[in-house]
Amino acid sequence: MKATIITIGDEILIGQIIDTNSGFIAKSLDRIGVEVREMISISDDKKHILDTFSQLQNKVDLVIVTGGLGPTKDDVTKKTFCEYFDDQLVVDPEVLAHVTQLIEGYFKRAITQMNKDQALVPSTCTILHNKVGTAPGMWMKKENTVFISLPGVPYEMKYLVEEEIIPKIVREYKRPYIIHKTILTYGQGESLVAERIEHWENNLPGFIKLAYLPNPGRVRLRLTAKGTDKGILEAAIEENVKSLDAIIHDIIVGFDDDETIEVVVGKLLVQQNKTISTAESFTGGKIASLLSAVPGASHYFKGSVVSYATETKVNVLGVPQNLVDEFSVVSAEVASAMALNVKQLLKTDYAIATTGNAGPSKGDSDTEIGAVFIALATPNGVVTEEFNFGQPREKVIDRATIKSLEILQKEILKIV
Amino acid sequence: MKATIITIGDEILIGQIIDTNSGFIAKSLDRIGVEVREMISISDDKKHILDTFSQLQNKVDLVIVTGGLGPTKDDVTKKTFCEYFDDQLVVDPEVLAHVTQLIEGYFKRAITQMNKDQALVPSTCTILHNKVGTAPGMWMKKENTVFISLPGVPYEMKYLVEEEIIPKIVREYKRPYIIHKTILTYGQGESLVAERIEHWENNLPGFIKLAYLPNPGRVRLRLTAKGTDKGILEAAIEENVKSLDAIIHDIIVGFDDDETIEVVVGKLLVQQNKTISTAESFTGGKIASLLSAVPGASHYFKGSVVSYATETKVNVLGVPQNLVDEFSVVSAEVASAMALNVKQLLKTDYAIATTGNAGPSKGDSDTEIGAVFIALATPNGVVTEEFNFGQPREKVIDRATIKSLEILQKEILKIV
Repeated sequence: MKATIITIGDEILIGQIIDTNSGFIAKSLDRIGVEVREMISISDDKKHILDTFSQLQNKVDLVIVTGGLGPTKDDVTKKTFCEYFDDQLVVDPEVLAHVTQLIEGYFKRAITQMNKDQALVPSTCTILHNKVGTAPGMWMKKENTVFISLPGVPYEMKYLVEEEIIPKIVREYKRPYIIHKTILTYGQGESLVAERIEHWENNLPGFIKLAYLPNPGRVRLRLTAKGTDKGILEAAIEENVKSLDAIIHDIIVGFDDDETIEVVVGKLLVQQNKTISTAESFTGGKIASLLSAVPGASHYFKGSVVSYATETKVNVLGVPQNLVDEFSVVSAEVASAMALNVKQLLKTDYAIATTGNAGPSKGDSDTEIGAVFIALATPNGVVTEEFNFGQPREKVIDRATIKSLEILQKEILKIV
Repeated sequence: MKATIITIGDEILIGQIIDTNSGFIAKSLDRIGVEVREMISISDDKKHILDTFSQLQNKVDLVIVTGGLGPTKDDVTKKTFCEYFDDQLVVDPEVLAHVTQLIEGYFKRAITQMNKDQALVPSTCTILHNKVGTAPGMWMKKENTVFISLPGVPYEMKYLVEEEIIPKIVREYKRPYIIHKTILTYGQGESLVAERIEHWENNLPGFIKLAYLPNPGRVRLRLTAKGTDKGILEAAIEENVKSLDAIIHDIIVGFDDDETIEVVVGKLLVQQNKTISTAESFTGGKIASLLSAVPGASHYFKGSVVSYATETKVNVLGVPQNLVDEFSVVSAEVASAMALNVKQLLKTDYAIATTGNAGPSKGDSDTEIGAVFIALATPNGVVTEEFNFGQPREKVIDRATIKSLEILQKEILKIV
């Protein structure tokens, strides 16, 4: 079963917002064995949407459209569906009752004509009831292709995908199995990893595909197996991961599929019953916010002192002023003191500290732009590493954030 | 001048990563008057890429392709360009020298054959030299359409767009002006705003387009004017913004185009020479990291105490234990104490504090999931607001983060 995802909205085409809806839908479809062939973003232009529909007709089984369903004049999806299906809009009483209840009961204000118009749907569509918003989803079929329209508001879209679309596809369509396994490697570049595993890669069975996903300092290897027998796929993946592990065991740091570094680190801390805090300068709380974004973080994350200003490092964290004067605020010495002091202040087993110059201009230090010190206080002491992450500012912050969690991970796993 | 942006990579189609490259390219093109007609994500499949190229041939002036340029077997873009242009790969000596210098000089290791292959380019292409990575960009023209290939690594792509592609387009092509103006409104929903400005909207000149960009609690109105005379466009935008302001002055909170709330707040703080700190529980440092992501944040952001654990609120922030016992850790009283105490501890003019239950399960409090208290300490005292942001966790954290900055903005502007 093949699908195309279409996002409608000029705001995406001028770069004002990033489309995250398509990624969510793609992941949800992938899990049930539906292959996403293409993602397309186009403008709120009826003719362009109709042309795109025609091109996809009978080429894919499923076209999922998000956006363009709001009550205002710039939203065109519903009219376009009517034209494509030679249908007309009618009021659906159930949707109207829901919209009325939401506006009058929940928002406590009079319903307007525009609100009421949300209950207009093409007369032949199957309605996907949107319990968390006013715009309903629509499911319509022409020849071999199903066209689905969803609101663009992310949590409304998510609700309809999870509660309506995925269950309906699972009930009504036969699909193959798609299994992914991602291997996280650390410390060697894409080319080097590729040369080491070339022979192994050449011997992969035809139904397993390998992809390299490089990030600075680490490469994820993704294996994808597709077929009708889940048992065979799983066994083949397992066998090939095992033979891969024999070749590059020294650089493999994890096997989990979708897991981000903060989730991996969180699991390690729970396993070992340890706690963590952070003292952050230029990362500004980003490490803390990643750690705490994970459900259940309260089991290991106690908090952070974001000591952005030098005086906060001295007054709140208790970094000695003479250390700052002697070594500068961007130094291994200050990073170490920050880590040790926040560990003591928040009474944790581990503590991460960052100090650096993220740019674009120099701050309270003469250190060069991009220079970063990361310290990790452990139950046994403190280690500090120096980096230069260059520019721009955003990259320096992001790389230092990920790097600090990787240092923590390696320390916990003792694979340094 | 019309463009299509293509992203190549299965990792996008299975939802493993979100494509942010296209948004960056779109914004860069929009600024110089190039209209992005479509964004497409397709897999590393040569036939699919070739079909897409053929469909776009002579339909758009510019096709920009990112991804698929790495050294490994799963990267197919270069071979596909050769096939489409009936060309062959040749070694470019300048690129080879650069790659060799980068690998041997910077990374200090022996160059491999795969590294060397990065210097292979189609013989007729114009090379876009990538000073920040190993994969060069390529610019090739067939009939009326230019095809450009860029590496998928975001900062390499950004470098080539900013330093090579945009300057080249500006030099070689005539383009119209595209001007956007975004008006930020606050406190009324999309339908209500639309009804209030219906008459104004119907009277907009044909060359100005209006779009509604709704977010929970706020709606951005984006005006786009396109034409050949910049002066006329700017005057028309200004006039229509003025007449719009006369109608919905009560809900307009800002006018800036691309500015995020943290940038707007930062400017206000600099203008008024005030400083800010945060005390964050469930937002986990997200407010601090947004504030500090802005270049120049050191002029107003002093730091944060991320008091995720209750004991951190008591021990570090000095929230009285009896306040926690009496009102629970998720309460207006605790939020107020957090804000006042962090303001004093970090010696700032303003302080934001958050406490709440982001879910998915209940934490150190019996408060219902989604319940949030935001406190703002000001030079004159402290105000606290209560919200329920529902679920999921991610939404609760994001909405509270934005809301707290909006509360700060309104307080500074005294438009409450």
